[in-house]
Amino acid sequence: MIKLFYAVNTCSLASHIALEEAGATYTTVRLSFASNEQRGPEYLAINPKGRVPAMVTDRGILTETPAMLAFIAQSFPEARLAPLDDPFAFAQVQAFNSYLCSTVHVAHAHRMRGQRWADDPAAIAAMQRKAPQSVGACFELIERDMLKGPWVMGEAYTICDPYLFTLAGWLEGDGVDLTKLPRVIDHHRRVSERPAVRRAVSAELA
Amino acid sequence: MIKLFYAVNTCSLASHIALEEAGATYTTVRLSFASNEQRGPEYLAINPKGRVPAMVTDRGILTETPAMLAFIAQSFPEARLAPLDDPFAFAQVQAFNSYLCSTVHVAHAHRMRGQRWADDPAAIAAMQRKAPQSVGACFELIERDMLKGPWVMGEAYTICDPYLFTLAGWLEGDGVDLTKLPRVIDHHRRVSERPAVRRAVSAELA
Repeated sequence: MIKLFYAVNTCSLASHIALEEAGATYTTVRLSFASNEQRGPEYLAINPKGRVPAMVTDRGILTETPAMLAFIAQSFPEARLAPLDDPFAFAQVQAFNSYLCSTVHVAHAHRMRGQRWADDPAAIAAMQRKAPQSVGACFELIERDMLKGPWVMGEAYTICDPYLFTLAGWLEGDGVDLTKLPRVIDHHRRVSERPAVRRAVSAELA
Repeated sequence: MIKLFYAVNTCSLASHIALEEAGATYTTVRLSFASNEQRGPEYLAINPKGRVPAMVTDRGILTETPAMLAFIAQSFPEARLAPLDDPFAFAQVQAFNSYLCSTVHVAHAHRMRGQRWADDPAAIAAMQRKAPQSVGACFELIERDMLKGPWVMGEAYTICDPYLFTLAGWLEGDGVDLTKLPRVIDHHRRVSERPAVRRAVSAELA
């Protein structure tokens, strides 16, 4: 049995959706970032990084969205959430998700989490000011060069789609000009209409 | 035939080492960051992100270190660079590499590449000042909770090892207190002594 630790409005939504898409049997534990539960001793024993998501499995604990997404795809092959028998196509999936975690999510994090990288309040404010531009540049690259359509990898829905959907959900809050991103916005709407996505989103908002 | 685009003193060394460990047939192209070649039209046609590494394969182009490392491990299974038949163990490898790309490398990048996330020179200087602390905190977590020893994943050398080796090579330049990281330093030495690692390092310094 899988147990997913998540918090609302975070990247853990991607793994939550993937579990729904996979038809997995799982339970969830919601952490309150407002109460700083991700930094409490109970959760730090599960994930010493103090971040979400984390996933408890029969074999042990997993963290990091790209790793969890690939694990879900490999554990539920019948859901066809990744091209598991083709190392090159699988690497393309991984490359996309790696870009989301290492560059896109990081650009976004400079709007709210600048204290990770500087102490000076003026520096943190300067990071906040640049977030619309740096996040926007990432998504313009996705719009132009990476999102094949209708899904990220083309005709097949994969673990890239709920991850992009999750991060694109932050664009408005980040102050990014959405008119430059019609294909990303269209993709976001398309993903939002999937039954599994609706179930995961509703569960988090409940 | 694989062609690896790299630059010295960058994370592309991890993929370079993995190709050597795998016994792959490949060629390399060295980019000069000093001449800003990674931003030239020729390279942008290969990798529109303007970053290294990139790898041209018979099937197309791959980017992003964790994806390239997993691709090398899957393409050369006889080299046993990842637990390919065990989705949970493979996910642990991926989680480690994902942490390196999304958190450790990012913390390091604030020392030299602050202009990615702020325009104000004072903010960039503030990021630079915090890098020893934020990079140090990442490596203390690796030291304490993640590096099993003798290799990252325990008894088996995997694609995590050249990646950690590469990023640990930046610790001194980042001003991190190495006395707190005896296991990381020991791992770095152990990796450096491998013949494949020596070949890749020598080729980059030649």
